[in-house]
Amino acid sequence: KIDGDRLWDSLMEMAKIGPGIAGGNNRQTLTDADAEGRALFRRWCEEAGMTMGLDRMGNMFMRHEGEDPSLDPVYIGSHLDTQPTGGKYDGVLGVLSGLEVIRSIRDMGLKTRRPVVVVNWTNEEGTRFAPAMLASGVYAGMHTEDFANAREDAEGRTFGAELDRIGWRGAEDVGGRPIHAMFEYHIEQGPILEAEGKQIGVVTHGQGLWWLQVTLTGKEAHTGSTPMHMRVNAGLGMARIIEAAHRIAMDHQPNAVGAVGQANVYPNSRNVIPGRAVFTIDFRSPELDKLTSMRARLEAEAPKIAAELGLGIEIEPVGHFDPVTFDAGLAQTLREASERLGYSHMDIVSGAGHDACWINRVAPTVMIMCPCVDGLSHNEAEEISPEWASAGADVLLHAVLDVAEI
Amino acid sequence: KIDGDRLWDSLMEMAKIGPGIAGGNNRQTLTDADAEGRALFRRWCEEAGMTMGLDRMGNMFMRHEGEDPSLDPVYIGSHLDTQPTGGKYDGVLGVLSGLEVIRSIRDMGLKTRRPVVVVNWTNEEGTRFAPAMLASGVYAGMHTEDFANAREDAEGRTFGAELDRIGWRGAEDVGGRPIHAMFEYHIEQGPILEAEGKQIGVVTHGQGLWWLQVTLTGKEAHTGSTPMHMRVNAGLGMARIIEAAHRIAMDHQPNAVGAVGQANVYPNSRNVIPGRAVFTIDFRSPELDKLTSMRARLEAEAPKIAAELGLGIEIEPVGHFDPVTFDAGLAQTLREASERLGYSHMDIVSGAGHDACWINRVAPTVMIMCPCVDGLSHNEAEEISPEWASAGADVLLHAVLDVAEI
Ligand SMILES: NC(=O)NCCC(=O)O
Ligand SMILES: NC(=O)NCCC(=O)O
Repeated sequence: KIDGDRLWDSLMEMAKIGPGIAGGNNRQTLTDADAEGRALFRRWCEEAGMTMGLDRMGNMFMRHEGEDPSLDPVYIGSHLDTQPTGGKYDGVLGVLSGLEVIRSIRDMGLKTRRPVVVVNWTNEEGTRFAPAMLASGVYAGMHTEDFANAREDAEGRTFGAELDRIGWRGAEDVGGRPIHAMFEYHIEQGPILEAEGKQIGVVTHGQGLWWLQVTLTGKEAHTGSTPMHMRVNAGLGMARIIEAAHRIAMDHQPNAVGAVGQANVYPNSRNVIPGRAVFTIDFRSPELDKLTSMRARLEAEAPKIAAELGLGIEIEPVGHFDPVTFDAGLAQTLREASERLGYSHMDIVSGAGHDACWINRVAPTVMIMCPCVDGLSHNEAEEISPEWASAGADVLLHAVLDVAEI
Repeated sequence: KIDGDRLWDSLMEMAKIGPGIAGGNNRQTLTDADAEGRALFRRWCEEAGMTMGLDRMGNMFMRHEGEDPSLDPVYIGSHLDTQPTGGKYDGVLGVLSGLEVIRSIRDMGLKTRRPVVVVNWTNEEGTRFAPAMLASGVYAGMHTEDFANAREDAEGRTFGAELDRIGWRGAEDVGGRPIHAMFEYHIEQGPILEAEGKQIGVVTHGQGLWWLQVTLTGKEAHTGSTPMHMRVNAGLGMARIIEAAHRIAMDHQPNAVGAVGQANVYPNSRNVIPGRAVFTIDFRSPELDKLTSMRARLEAEAPKIAAELGLGIEIEPVGHFDPVTFDAGLAQTLREASERLGYSHMDIVSGAGHDACWINRVAPTVMIMCPCVDGLSHNEAEEISPEWASAGADVLLHAVLDVAEI
């Protein structure tokens, strides 16, 4: 078993970097806090005898050498970046558990034939720069480097310029590393494991996603002196499309979700009819048909809503991945490790997107999940117990030892 | 008649201060640009022989002496501040036309028995610091100075601190000046005069207003992994209440309007269910019953919408004035002046709030309006013709000469 106290201490230490305002973290990608978190992770890894590879997307590959360095390594990866009001575990748990696995292997004097590489993927969250899982997406050939470098945050700063600014752009080509298998360990971010009383989720599938950014164009005008029939109100159009997106998701129950998390009206003044509204709809389903159907309905209904109000409309997809089926053999390895360790487990579908969803396209990949309190994530109040954290890391250790050939 | 070219030149000169991005102005209250605009106005007034009074709210009183300084003066007032994406005329036309009246009186060698005071009221727009017409409201005894000083902008800076910072707080008590009558000349900001082909609007009434700021409290959570039934989505609640506000206004037709101009969700991240939404509903009507009824319906319906979604709700009035009836005698003076000058005119109700609405509570007050192109205001594209501008200023001159006893 891994050292649960050491894992927890590392989590708490990392959480001091980029603290939030309510007990969580604001360590958004490519900020100074992100740079500080990366430096701490690198130091810890190097203290554990690992060596760093760094690619042009800032993905950090911390390598623990195997007995046979020529064999394809086993990867353990997740992300250190957080939401603006994020939790202390989301992503971080997976990266630091990878480190803990290496620390434990060394403590126990174990040797694996294959190298083991612990990865921190850049910009998983996608809040500052959409889409999410950007750098693992480039790694898997889903996006070009130019596309990634040109992504802009709300202040118009680009991903490329910010990566250079914080000094974490490497020289290594992005993609093409030989990967024997990749594991990602993550908190569930949903309520199922806790409700079912299971310690371990063996993630067999992941939901697909569409992010549809809608821009409505109306006419700025006075809220008092403009007669109702002369208004071209982009804010009202936004309200109706938010409701439509919700209805569309409800009509696709079960196995479908939809919501708008980001919404802005301009000029955002109490006595000005909004002349423009920009917002993003997030649709997800583990079933490709439902995912496709939700997007199609939105693209049919939203222009009608806009037209009724005289609004111009543009709908731009700013994020997408298809539903994922993870590697069945690796999933079986996780079940066996859980049984061996005496941990209760169940198969589960990931509701969130993860770097593993992209890496699954280029190498056998699987995910492990642990419960989180009330299913709450993307919230500073996100919480897990040290026991939950350790159980998943134990399963990760056993599975890695299996696959890396102890 | 006044000098239309000089008036227009002054408007264009003032518009250079705090330029917008699309031909209009961003000279929001208590910014550096506001200070610069005030200094220019003061210089122009002093060049026209006027002397300044400045009260503790930054209201500027530029006095042109009368033959009998002991008589109560006639006031001409409006505001120099603008919306963030405002036009060049809204407010400014009224202040600079007041100056132009004095310049013309001097040019013609006329003498009025009563002094004439041209006023720039602080923070009319209410965008940066709600409510609108803040300093005229304090002047009229509707708000305390403490209330005004404590108003906060979106960055948490207070009205009081910003007034001190730009150096425009005076020593004079706020309110209590003897006012024989006040005139406010303003663009209509609506489509009626242009549609009716009238040069002059004699403003007999003004709409009343309620600004209701709604705060919804839900639960930040992941947009992907949180099941639909576990969501407490403040953004969805906002969408439904925006729609409800619109429906309430439509149900009160005619003579009622309603919209939401300002809307924010938090943390405003594409993959986070909004945990909080803050937005302001703007209801207006010239009929007190309708105004009261719209507020009551919103206060009945919004909590139901919130409760259905499991949201907490707070509704805080952040702006209010009752419908206004302006002075009938002064309105008659305006009609007679228009006739004498050969300008077409009609009685009209102001759709917007104005400083005159508050001053009307402490002194006989009336407003003059000129048309604006397509009724468009609170938009950088706001436009009027030089002829429209001059016609209203001519009527202002004649009315002031009548009332100030030439
Ligand atoms: N795991 C996670 O929250 N990733 C961010 C991308 C997503 O929204 O699913
Ligand atoms: N005239 C004007 O636009 N005043 C601002 C206050 C309001 O919204 O009516």
